[in-house]
Amino acid sequence: MDDVATLSPTHRSTVRRGAKRARTDRADLHAVLDAGLVGHLAVVLDGAPVVLPTGYGRHGETLYLHGSTGAATLRAAAAGGPVCFTVTHLDGVVYARSAFHHSVNYRCAVVHGTARTVEDPQEKLLGLEVLTEQLAPGSWTATRRPDRRELAATVVLALDLAEASVKIRTGPPGDDERDLPAAGSPDPVWAGVLPLRTVVGTPEPDPLLPAGTPLPARVAGRRLR
Amino acid sequence: MDDVATLSPTHRSTVRRGAKRARTDRADLHAVLDAGLVGHLAVVLDGAPVVLPTGYGRHGETLYLHGSTGAATLRAAAAGGPVCFTVTHLDGVVYARSAFHHSVNYRCAVVHGTARTVEDPQEKLLGLEVLTEQLAPGSWTATRRPDRRELAATVVLALDLAEASVKIRTGPPGDDERDLPAAGSPDPVWAGVLPLRTVVGTPEPDPLLPAGTPLPARVAGRRLR
Repeated sequence: MDDVATLSPTHRSTVRRGAKRARTDRADLHAVLDAGLVGHLAVVLDGAPVVLPTGYGRHGETLYLHGSTGAATLRAAAAGGPVCFTVTHLDGVVYARSAFHHSVNYRCAVVHGTARTVEDPQEKLLGLEVLTEQLAPGSWTATRRPDRRELAATVVLALDLAEASVKIRTGPPGDDERDLPAAGSPDPVWAGVLPLRTVVGTPEPDPLLPAGTPLPARVAGRRLR
Repeated sequence: MDDVATLSPTHRSTVRRGAKRARTDRADLHAVLDAGLVGHLAVVLDGAPVVLPTGYGRHGETLYLHGSTGAATLRAAAAGGPVCFTVTHLDGVVYARSAFHHSVNYRCAVVHGTARTVEDPQEKLLGLEVLTEQLAPGSWTATRRPDRRELAATVVLALDLAEASVKIRTGPPGDDERDLPAAGSPDPVWAGVLPLRTVVGTPEPDPLLPAGTPLPARVAGRRLR
């Protein structure tokens, strides 16, 4: 069962900083990944790191990434170099009584590994389906599927979720005892959390869309997790 | 003047994919950086990339990053290894008439370089001030400043904005001609943009805060760019 399966930390996926924020449930990993639209893919190019925002989708314990065959970062990942893929949600600004204890509430998943270029046509379509559905649920069946030329122009990578970590911070600031007011005294410094969330606005129809084209449920009902 | 200064692309900061989306104004770079709360810092550890969310602040053409002296990524950056720091804002989901042309509207700044560990006490305080103010405007003057022990536990890194690129996508989907309806015909597939934005919720006072502590203007009036 997903909710009892645990992440098995390796050396580099062991959370050292803020270890109390580390989660070891696979369900936490899946939830953080499933709630995102874009992650950050890091590769090494000529000895230096490069990190770019990248779309993705999850199918079981496989993460699918895609991009143009012309993208250098995708090519580096496709060539079998090590990659790191991180998805972060910012949930709040944590105001503390000291500058030092200011923080953010967040959920963050980090996946380490080596990507596999998906060559099998069926798996490539599956990868593109989960990628499309992650970004725009319902769009895979509602829109034209990729044709041969589009498939050839797209690299789909599969990244196993074997080596991954999750960190989640929630709750109020962790102020020092010395910064708290004495019992019964007023507190000169407000402390607490300003929650943040991502919301959808009013859909903007393509100017090329004929007037009166109805808004489909897959767009009208869209909510973010 | 900021708004006419241009970015001078190097080999690795030249935008190749989607070059029409590249911006070359320093003002665009500053605007994308200034609108963010957290970026993604990538370093190379044991030959593999590691990318983690990181707070930052900008002062002129210098980006300040900070973290615990115990964080391996910060230590790798402080040791003079190459880094990449990326700030991404998601502005919308782009629904197209084909799966292939689905996209996102976004603003993204990518900075390449080598970080310098800030040793000068005055500059270290400046770095922490701009970091605090980026996350929580007004908090630097309203809260207790870092003491000697806190300063010793914190690494502040300076990253020059010399080598950076900005990409911005706005507007409707770029559908193929073949997927558009004939003039006067209905369109079976809705296309357009679902805007996304980050909003602040109701502030949550620290449970340790005495009842009736007023909400300061720096929190009550907080808006995100």
